[in-house]
Amino acid sequence: MRKEHDFLGELSVPDEVYYGVQTIRAVENFKITGQRVDTDFIIAMAQVKKAAILANMSTGRLEKSIGEPLQQAAEEIIGGRFLDQFPVDPIQGGAGTSFNMNMNEVLCNRALEITGQAKGRYDIISPNNHGNMAQSTNDTFPTAIKVCLRQKGKKLLAALDYLATELENKSGEYKDILKMARTHLQDAVPITLGQEMGSYASSVRRGMRRISHALDEIRYINMGGTAVGTGLNAEPAYLAVIADKLSEVTGEQWEEAANLIDATNNTDGFADVSAAMKNTALVLIKMANDFRLMASGPRDGFYELKLPMRQPGSSIMPGKVNPVIAEVLNQTCYQVVGNDLAVSLAVENGQFELNVMEPVMAFNMFNSMKFLTNAVNGFVDKLLKDLEPNRQQCQHWLDRSVGVVTALLPHIGYEQSAQLAKEAYSSGRPIREIILEKGIMSEERLNEVMSPMAMTSPGIVGQ
Amino acid sequence: MRKEHDFLGELSVPDEVYYGVQTIRAVENFKITGQRVDTDFIIAMAQVKKAAILANMSTGRLEKSIGEPLQQAAEEIIGGRFLDQFPVDPIQGGAGTSFNMNMNEVLCNRALEITGQAKGRYDIISPNNHGNMAQSTNDTFPTAIKVCLRQKGKKLLAALDYLATELENKSGEYKDILKMARTHLQDAVPITLGQEMGSYASSVRRGMRRISHALDEIRYINMGGTAVGTGLNAEPAYLAVIADKLSEVTGEQWEEAANLIDATNNTDGFADVSAAMKNTALVLIKMANDFRLMASGPRDGFYELKLPMRQPGSSIMPGKVNPVIAEVLNQTCYQVVGNDLAVSLAVENGQFELNVMEPVMAFNMFNSMKFLTNAVNGFVDKLLKDLEPNRQQCQHWLDRSVGVVTALLPHIGYEQSAQLAKEAYSSGRPIREIILEKGIMSEERLNEVMSPMAMTSPGIVGQ
Amino acid sequence: MRKEHDFLGELSVPDEVYYGVQTIRAVENFKITGQRVDTDFIIAMAQVKKAAILANMSTGRLEKSIGEPLQQAAEEIIGGRFLDQFPVDPIQGGAGTSFNMNMNEVLCNRALEITGQAKGRYDIISPNNHGNMAQSTNDTFPTAIKVCLRQKGKKLLAALDYLATELENKSGEYKDILKMARTHLQDAVPITLGQEMGSYASSVRRGMRRISHALDEIRYINMGGTAVGTGLNAEPAYLAVIADKLSEVTGEQWEEAANLIDATNNTDGFADVSAAMKNTALVLIKMANDFRLMASGPRDGFYELKLPMRQPGSSIMPGKVNPVIAEVLNQTCYQVVGNDLAVSLAVENGQFELNVMEPVMAFNMFNSMKFLTNAVNGFVDKLLKDLEPNRQQCQHWLDRSVGVVTALLPHIGYEQSAQLAKEAYSSGRPIREIILEKGIMSEERLNEVMSPMAMTSPGIVGQ
Amino acid sequence: MRKEHDFLGELSVPDEVYYGVQTIRAVENFKITGQRVDTDFIIAMAQVKKAAILANMSTGRLEKSIGEPLQQAAEEIIGGRFLDQFPVDPIQGGAGTSFNMNMNEVLCNRALEITGQAKGRYDIISPNNHGNMAQSTNDTFPTAIKVCLRQKGKKLLAALDYLATELENKSGEYKDILKMARTHLQDAVPITLGQEMGSYASSVRRGMRRISHALDEIRYINMGGTAVGTGLNAEPAYLAVIADKLSEVTGEQWEEAANLIDATNNTDGFADVSAAMKNTALVLIKMANDFRLMASGPRDGFYELKLPMRQPGSSIMPGKVNPVIAEVLNQTCYQVVGNDLAVSLAVENGQFELNVMEPVMAFNMFNSMKFLTNAVNGFVDKLLKDLEPNRQQCQHWLDRSVGVVTALLPHIGYEQSAQLAKEAYSSGRPIREIILEKGIMSEERLNEVMSPMAMTSPGIVGQ
Repeated sequence: MRKEHDFLGELSVPDEVYYGVQTIRAVENFKITGQRVDTDFIIAMAQVKKAAILANMSTGRLEKSIGEPLQQAAEEIIGGRFLDQFPVDPIQGGAGTSFNMNMNEVLCNRALEITGQAKGRYDIISPNNHGNMAQSTNDTFPTAIKVCLRQKGKKLLAALDYLATELENKSGEYKDILKMARTHLQDAVPITLGQEMGSYASSVRRGMRRISHALDEIRYINMGGTAVGTGLNAEPAYLAVIADKLSEVTGEQWEEAANLIDATNNTDGFADVSAAMKNTALVLIKMANDFRLMASGPRDGFYELKLPMRQPGSSIMPGKVNPVIAEVLNQTCYQVVGNDLAVSLAVENGQFELNVMEPVMAFNMFNSMKFLTNAVNGFVDKLLKDLEPNRQQCQHWLDRSVGVVTALLPHIGYEQSAQLAKEAYSSGRPIREIILEKGIMSEERLNEVMSPMAMTSPGIVGQ
Repeated sequence: MRKEHDFLGELSVPDEVYYGVQTIRAVENFKITGQRVDTDFIIAMAQVKKAAILANMSTGRLEKSIGEPLQQAAEEIIGGRFLDQFPVDPIQGGAGTSFNMNMNEVLCNRALEITGQAKGRYDIISPNNHGNMAQSTNDTFPTAIKVCLRQKGKKLLAALDYLATELENKSGEYKDILKMARTHLQDAVPITLGQEMGSYASSVRRGMRRISHALDEIRYINMGGTAVGTGLNAEPAYLAVIADKLSEVTGEQWEEAANLIDATNNTDGFADVSAAMKNTALVLIKMANDFRLMASGPRDGFYELKLPMRQPGSSIMPGKVNPVIAEVLNQTCYQVVGNDLAVSLAVENGQFELNVMEPVMAFNMFNSMKFLTNAVNGFVDKLLKDLEPNRQQCQHWLDRSVGVVTALLPHIGYEQSAQLAKEAYSSGRPIREIILEKGIMSEERLNEVMSPMAMTSPGIVGQ
Repeated sequence: MRKEHDFLGELSVPDEVYYGVQTIRAVENFKITGQRVDTDFIIAMAQVKKAAILANMSTGRLEKSIGEPLQQAAEEIIGGRFLDQFPVDPIQGGAGTSFNMNMNEVLCNRALEITGQAKGRYDIISPNNHGNMAQSTNDTFPTAIKVCLRQKGKKLLAALDYLATELENKSGEYKDILKMARTHLQDAVPITLGQEMGSYASSVRRGMRRISHALDEIRYINMGGTAVGTGLNAEPAYLAVIADKLSEVTGEQWEEAANLIDATNNTDGFADVSAAMKNTALVLIKMANDFRLMASGPRDGFYELKLPMRQPGSSIMPGKVNPVIAEVLNQTCYQVVGNDLAVSLAVENGQFELNVMEPVMAFNMFNSMKFLTNAVNGFVDKLLKDLEPNRQQCQHWLDRSVGVVTALLPHIGYEQSAQLAKEAYSSGRPIREIILEKGIMSEERLNEVMSPMAMTSPGIVGQ
Repeated sequence: MRKEHDFLGELSVPDEVYYGVQTIRAVENFKITGQRVDTDFIIAMAQVKKAAILANMSTGRLEKSIGEPLQQAAEEIIGGRFLDQFPVDPIQGGAGTSFNMNMNEVLCNRALEITGQAKGRYDIISPNNHGNMAQSTNDTFPTAIKVCLRQKGKKLLAALDYLATELENKSGEYKDILKMARTHLQDAVPITLGQEMGSYASSVRRGMRRISHALDEIRYINMGGTAVGTGLNAEPAYLAVIADKLSEVTGEQWEEAANLIDATNNTDGFADVSAAMKNTALVLIKMANDFRLMASGPRDGFYELKLPMRQPGSSIMPGKVNPVIAEVLNQTCYQVVGNDLAVSLAVENGQFELNVMEPVMAFNMFNSMKFLTNAVNGFVDKLLKDLEPNRQQCQHWLDRSVGVVTALLPHIGYEQSAQLAKEAYSSGRPIREIILEKGIMSEERLNEVMSPMAMTSPGIVGQ
């Protein structure tokens, strides 16, 4: 055990660990979830630190003899080492100070080790003076959240692209499968199953644009704003390079916010990222619901889709197979919507120069990104790839339908068409039969006007 | 025009109106919704005022020469007069001070009129000294909300009872209509349509208990707590009688809160009332969704229910009829859920001795109660009363189903049952036929074991 | 009374009204809010209809003898006539069919009147055949929502610009007023009141960009998609011109959606508009909270701001004045957040080719836009314009503060600085006095390093 | 490796694990959170299974030679063994079938082992036939959720009681500390710090009643309802005893639901439990906010409370200490509110005979219970126990205040009192001085009327 102290006093720290006194206080203070900070977030914070180290060396404020071992330590973490040295709870008070100091302590103790010094010799390399040089939790923590969001965001966007692409494939494959569209869950007019798949794909691509846009809007960072955005203890030279250094370190483009005070006070950019995920989740819920409806049956439902069988569906009902992959997508999306509300409440509760609720925002956004990425990938791999259309059933519904009468509207008007429909419903007879019987049009003409495939795209009407 | 003043200065007030200077300021200050305070709320506030007037006369603090005309004025409002004299916006700052003073002004000006004095002679009968005697907005306003909630709540409970009763009627009427139950939207095992209706009824009755309980829990009022709950300017004698007076005036039972400070600081009782409506709405959403699913078709859906046709369903698709009454119930319930969040945010944002966000809570709770009452009554009148089961279709689904194989489980085990189901699904053949062909049991025994009606209640198994 | 019928039967319609049988059914069917459709929405729908009339005349499908009086009727409504002829409830089943048909009926009856025919002569000019030509509720209704949102959106953006501009003015006026920034509600480091106002302005301008972006993204319409997005009963020539016609009629740019089926199935664009308002509301909540905190007092609080006195604050506490204008902004924002959830739930609940929950989305988005516009304008007019900074109090807090010690960090390190701060707190002595006493730096140097104004922008550090 | 199969085919299972083929499929199918099912939930499910085993042995349907080893296996899990044998993700499709089967597999394989058989010999002891006898996921899963909620609920209630008790202690300790109450964040009238603490305590106790009530309402279980609530494959004798067996096993009282179909279809009881936590969280947010406000400063804020220093507050501002324990309570509460929305969405999305979204409900409710328990306990241990009132500062605010003028209202009326207040505010002079100067009452009388302590409880007024 080594001794460490901060201005509240001294504590014993196990010799082997790289974190120090402030981390130990934090672990004691915040026992909420029992979980640990997301690994991607640790790496993102290490990237932010590396950028700051480089910037501070470039301005000359940080000597190389300290800066270089710190840089090496940061790079080791980015490379995946020491990830077990971050025991703080993701939901923490102090606006992320504990996580920031946890990182500063690990960096400094590792740097001390690299330079052959004993851990805890903060008189040589100090978490506050060197690890945090020209920084504050209030700029590094939200910046690390942004870095993490954009990196996790790539995985989510890749998953959504995977989904959209597979839906587009299905759209092509099913382009000739006619079925009855439904509005209000009531029989409407013909459509193709391919058109439906294309519509899902189109909505998912819009979701991608929405998320990309929100992620793009958080490219403005407040590094160098320090405590309250005024830049106290950061020099102009540091401010001039820090965004570029972060771009260099992360491979993403970052820009210094035009108003560093606003960028420190407000977290609405996070609300936007969260809302972008939430609104995309709403679309995915609708898609998953449709799949579950279309797969309903097999004997007593719509049964237009045959989902791959992934597991016995019931502990009691033999032979039952359920749409479990769609169901888990639904549930994940509900989680995303709930998480978004937690983010909204946190964003709402900033005060004066800081929103201290950032840790819970990060926790929810990271969870949403991770869960949604997993659920979407699972939906493609476990459901969509092996999906089979039930052509027979689609045709069956189409043959029975009355809604095709809509195509007569430009020819005989709404009122007479409605009378025909009414007669079909009350008699139970096919609508075509009634039309022909009444001599409304010749069979040839009827075939033309009421061709289901023709009805699936805009055409010549009323002639 | 007459002149009135408050400590901010003097204003002209049209002679014919009963409200005064503070109301006019409020109208100017709060132009948010363009709506007016709910009529039931005006009456509730008048009841609170009447109770306070009676209590103040009973303690001797309010002379009868002033108290009696004030009482008459309050009674006139309760009876429905002067309801147009409350122009303040329901979403208002000041924690309801404007509405409270609007009421005090109308009461006093009407009392002045009754006693033959000119309106505005507040030196004789004063909104602050007499209208508000032993009161504060901080006790009258939340108390009036409670009075209004319990009165509106009766209408909502009556509507829910109306719904539950009609569902129970349907449960009886449909008790012999067998159909296939669905879990995961997949064919499950037999049930009766009557059982389903009974389940909806049961869930609605639980909703009624939930709402009743929440309304019961807000029977504790903070009248006499005055500004911050300490009771400043209220005397013990007033506190001793005010709850009884309010009970007398309203015909509901009210009790003085044990901790008047808490009762003034906190509004979580409103969150409970709102949540009770929200959670009942969730159940109604599920019911409305089920009705829409069961009515899907008419040719290409489940079509187990025939909803009464209330209006042409489509401007373009002739003969189409949609489940519009269920749809409007759905939407009303979404509104209730949204309103609940507005209430939650307002409840969360109290500070120190008061939650100044009460007006927006009231606005949302009253809207939820009113809208939900209307939508539920409409669902019964416009849909449920004229509902028709589609017996033929129910039987059709039942006859086709495979899930009845579940009844074999205690006899031949899960595994063999599952094999039979699988064979039925892949061959498309009836499950009964397969069982008989394989000689698994005699036809007589099979009829017994696989009787759909027997399967709808617990029975002798495994013998 | 005249007789009208639809395929459900015949009804009597008062002769003087311009709406017809379907409107009357709708009024009967949907009694939820007791409110009427937003006036701007009526006008937006009339604009959509005018565009369709022009397009249908341009393709030759609609004869001029019918098209021209219909166009005139539409223009009259756009000009503000007949606004009382739309009695349908904004929360309605049928996905807006009732409102669409209400409009079709009014248009046709007015057109009949213009051409000297009796109202109700739908055999001559028909709501379904002419009013709805090449249209469906499923394309006109969401398109009219979009038109209305962008028109209402302009008012909201103007209000936000008004707010941002006034905050920027204040930022300039207060640029020399030093005060202590607060993080975690704890004394932090110096900042100017002008910087704070500038931060609010900056966040409001970001809100404007967010809302503009969301409104821009709904410029894609599904007109011509008709019932399910396949364009049944619309001809390519109509599709080719309808977006341009709408642009012409509204003065806004509209484009035909690339995937009309998606554009008919999905309503996530509305979720985005709603979320943009919600997230902007979150920022406004924070700003309003800060104003209320800064105005706290007047004797026992922060009291850095003197808000204009708008009304007596209390019915019981004489002389009290409350931050009512900020409070009503808070409450309006909670409403917007609640409304957003109602929208989200509605968006989530689309099924197959349509989301029938659009009416409740429209209701909530329009309310949010209107309420927020009003509350923001009120905040500027009633609070911000007459705001006064309390310079004396700001200076008082600054003089007492210890947080200025932060500026020493680059000079003497975190640890020694913390010791000085600790000594100041425990002794109650000014921090400057202690620093000088200990001879840490000369008075001249200290004045330089700890100049509060210098501390409000990045500077030379550590030299 | 051993071979196991279900009706979808055969899989290899590592020999050492107790779970089987269906668990392995589930692990593959649901990779969402990367987390595992809550330990308490595993134990609760084992308790449900033990109750079913006992019931099935009591009816004679389950032979002792199988039942007893199963019982032993269940008891071992309840005792804490095999908790690592439950690898399924808490967010899972299939309505909990995977978790139910995971438990059935572990029970049977352990029972096989106890009886000297090889794992996987389901022909002897079968997960579906014996582990699941007279059961379905659709009754065991929600019942296990209820068991877990009531057990976790005890910990939460204990934490809240711990909080309320400590607040009551503080209420007693601070009963003589006078301070100014604040409404609208503006100076109001005197109160004691003890009264404030008592108010928090009272609101927490109401939260406890709310949660207890909700937990009490879920004592109705649907065991024996099996697949859809009709009780198929359960015999009346089993139904007669199962609730008692569960009571026996858990030490809690359970009752069979009156309507088993409703109890299987609907999950609104979970929405109630979640809402009870949410509404309690709203109250805790308000309390935590108040603590943070009262601790604001130390030089430039209200500073009526001195919170114990738990960790350095800032990585950059030396000597700063932040209210981190209150902040983490805030954030935990936001999480609870977000989780509640996820639950609400899941509850809303039941269909027909089942709500398949139960797993995500369980996940959120368990997290809310656990996180909230931790945050509340932390608030007491880390903040409340070592709280110190700042008597001097409280007195300072009181001495400066003008709001005490309210006590004059019954004596000289609102208007004159308001004039005095106005004069005090504009002159900056003490209100007492002005009153005495104007000879409004004698000093002796004034001391009586304006005694701050007397003003903290209802008194004789207006004499």
